[in-house]
Amino acid sequence: MPRPPFPAPVLDLLRGPQVAVIGVVRPDGSPVTAATWYLLEEDGAGGWHVLVNLDDTRKRVQHLRANPQVSLTVLGDSWYTHVTLLGRVAAWRDDPDLADTDRISRHYNGDPYPVRDRARVTAVVEVDRWTAWGALRDAR
Amino acid sequence: MPRPPFPAPVLDLLRGPQVAVIGVVRPDGSPVTAATWYLLEEDGAGGWHVLVNLDDTRKRVQHLRANPQVSLTVLGDSWYTHVTLLGRVAAWRDDPDLADTDRISRHYNGDPYPVRDRARVTAVVEVDRWTAWGALRDAR
Repeated sequence: MPRPPFPAPVLDLLRGPQVAVIGVVRPDGSPVTAATWYLLEEDGAGGWHVLVNLDDTRKRVQHLRANPQVSLTVLGDSWYTHVTLLGRVAAWRDDPDLADTDRISRHYNGDPYPVRDRARVTAVVEVDRWTAWGALRDAR
Repeated sequence: MPRPPFPAPVLDLLRGPQVAVIGVVRPDGSPVTAATWYLLEEDGAGGWHVLVNLDDTRKRVQHLRANPQVSLTVLGDSWYTHVTLLGRVAAWRDDPDLADTDRISRHYNGDPYPVRDRARVTAVVEVDRWTAWGALRDAR
């Protein structure tokens, strides 16, 4: 599996907004997946990270704090075109003003996030490797 | 998380065809996700399983043979409505005539599977638990 940077057609897809599913591992070693919003950003040092913003009370946050490894599948517009990013949570940051939450929400639907009364945290996922399938399979 | 059976609106979604992402765990304990087709079936004993058909040479097959635990997120028609099934591969069966492969392919697009020259296997995933989000969150 290649490492970042991404070929232009893969980057176009990842910049989204696209439907995505995150996979993490629970303490018992079993996988768990869920649909998620995300935001791809350059880290300023030639690498890429993905912001995933979570309700701080979710079990997924506990799982990720215990095992920071992440797989994120970003879906394209056909049944099979998709890109998977493998990485790990390199940093956590609180989001008391919902700044990240709103930025990601606006990216998807143009509006601030509607739920304002729950603590949110942002997982900064450093992307180690990626793979593309379907129409992007041979993207270079 | 509830166990099967599924409330009617959840079953309607799962019967699809819907876009889905499967999550498995690699031998190093990290998660990996990929878009997949699937087919939900009753097992005849009150339980439910999901068929996932795979190219036998895929690493995902090796990962699943080593660790049969599966998470499958089935996406609905909005950003956030989705159902996640947690289970494990209870049986493997070869698919020399591509009977499963074609059945699943027809379910998605009406046609037999176009690639005929690669060995396929079917993972029969027994569903242990499920959870629903978004519009299906409170489905009973």
